Amino acid sequence: MLKVVENRQETWSEYAGPYPMAYRRRIAWGDCDPAGIIYTPRVLDIAMETLERWYVDVLNAPWYELNHDMKMGSPTVRCEIDFIAAPKPDEEIASSIEVEAVGNSSATYVVTGRDGDGHPYFRCKIVSCFIKRPEFTAAPIPNDIRKRMEIYRDACGEV
Amino acid sequence: MLKVVENRQETWSEYAGPYPMAYRRRIAWGDCDPAGIIYTPRVLDIAMETLERWYVDVLNAPWYELNHDMKMGSPTVRCEIDFIAAPKPDEEIASSIEVEAVGNSSATYVVTGRDGDGHPYFRCKIVSCFIKRPEFTAAPIPNDIRKRMEIYRDACGEV
Amino acid sequence: MLKVVENRQETWSEYAGPYPMAYRRRIAWGDCDPAGIIYTPRVLDIAMETLERWYVDVLNAPWYELNHDMKMGSPTVRCEIDFIAAPKPDEEIASSIEVEAVGNSSATYVVTGRDGDGHPYFRCKIVSCFIKRPEFTAAPIPNDIRKRMEIYRDACGEV
Amino acid sequence: MLKVVENRQETWSEYAGPYPMAYRRRIAWGDCDPAGIIYTPRVLDIAMETLERWYVDVLNAPWYELNHDMKMGSPTVRCEIDFIAAPKPDEEIASSIEVEAVGNSSATYVVTGRDGDGHPYFRCKIVSCFIKRPEFTAAPIPNDIRKRMEIYRDACGEV
Repeated sequence: MLKVVENRQETWSEYAGPYPMAYRRRIAWGDCDPAGIIYTPRVLDIAMETLERWYVDVLNAPWYELNHDMKMGSPTVRCEIDFIAAPKPDEEIASSIEVEAVGNSSATYVVTGRDGDGHPYFRCKIVSCFIKRPEFTAAPIPNDIRKRMEIYRDACGEV
Repeated sequence: MLKVVENRQETWSEYAGPYPMAYRRRIAWGDCDPAGIIYTPRVLDIAMETLERWYVDVLNAPWYELNHDMKMGSPTVRCEIDFIAAPKPDEEIASSIEVEAVGNSSATYVVTGRDGDGHPYFRCKIVSCFIKRPEFTAAPIPNDIRKRMEIYRDACGEV
Repeated sequence: MLKVVENRQETWSEYAGPYPMAYRRRIAWGDCDPAGIIYTPRVLDIAMETLERWYVDVLNAPWYELNHDMKMGSPTVRCEIDFIAAPKPDEEIASSIEVEAVGNSSATYVVTGRDGDGHPYFRCKIVSCFIKRPEFTAAPIPNDIRKRMEIYRDACGEV
Repeated sequence: MLKVVENRQETWSEYAGPYPMAYRRRIAWGDCDPAGIIYTPRVLDIAMETLERWYVDVLNAPWYELNHDMKMGSPTVRCEIDFIAAPKPDEEIASSIEVEAVGNSSATYVVTGRDGDGHPYFRCKIVSCFIKRPEFTAAPIPNDIRKRMEIYRDACGEV
């Protein structure tokens, strides 16, 4: 019988930098296609993983809790990606996230993936909206989340 | 604002063959790795897609309904895969499914992927258990599902 | 020992419609996330699979041949996606492709995913460039490919 | 125009432990399905990523070099997975690898994924063969790779 494991309770502390936050991960063999470079959609996978990590570390709103406990969600409504350079397997990407705009029930992010020398691999703009479940109708960004978004955005601005 | 679309209500009719059922799909460029052949884990993706389709067409128990409406689930507890030949991009695979065993709260399947000439690409044995949610404890296979499993198993035997 | 299977030689005939071409596929359980709807990057997977199929059926330039035999490639340089509605598992998507622009060594496509009633799930603009390998420098679109692109674009315009 | 970036030349030094090596990664939202737990095939993704990392760090034979420079490959011929517990999004998995057998042109590995307390999520046995390209016929394991496999296997045995 398969067990289900509850999320470990980790103590969260208010994010204290660096600004912008960078998510690091290796390009796997399976992220790449027979051309020997990253398969186009995997770039959006990396951008979304970056956003997911930021929700955990900076906003203290892991998507699982946002959906399950808070009966909310933050689906993507638009994205734009510029593919600047194509990583090969085993490259390490540092993917950083900045907040471009915080609206009433939506927010806009820019995620930039870079190589070890700081040269960009991609630039991805993501627009997410906030919804309440199960109605799936627009919901204002909760106050504590909004506050952390604005603090983070302002701190990045100073960088 | 992103809309959520409810599953279209399709009329299901009792499965009437062929036995075994075959799920067909192309190997995508993105299923393959820089060696130019299918990336190992994508074979398990295809086997699971075959099982998923069989739950819809043969058992009338789509996983979404099984989880959401029936408060059950059928997680995988074990699988064994023999990789016999490696497809390249754009190959069409016919992936057939047979029932090896039906237990009280678990079932064993054999999924075989073949090329257009009937030569095998892979053979995958999958053992699933049935659970009730949210406890995630073992549950007997519901009677109508069990009955359809047995009819299908017997019909395949005649093939 | 794992065998490698050569692509079956299928006879290609000049594409004769419909315009636009539509690629159909089911949303798999594994395409969806714990929110119960398609995971954002899987939309780009579907858009790219549509483009890949169009290269096979309409352009007679499967990506494997383009890369391996013709020593070329057509990497993505930009995409824009509008997420309009979110499909759930087992929905069938019809994803159609139109040509917006044909340049010297790049082309722009619009891929639109729709449900069974024709309502859009997503709209994805993709810009690809043509390159020669292994230099990975810009290359003009080969004449026969360009011609088929233009015939297709014009035929869609009449729809 | 999209650039392609060459793999950064990192200095490799002979692996010095720990034994077994552990690959760590978070379970992403997109690794999980609408049941709220990891989608079955993603477990094999994690096992293969562990094997890939071990080829880089321990064997000094990244798959890209093995394929591209050495004209070899190490495709999977069989795997067996026991799914013991199901992680949810954002769990961190430590996935360790042990060598069970080193043959003439094949090797057998056991990859075990564990949670932060050391409880197992999964156990995956992988059998790979070595081939030469482009013939895709069996090839003996190169001597330096074999030697490192055996040293690692023996060092793990002492753990």
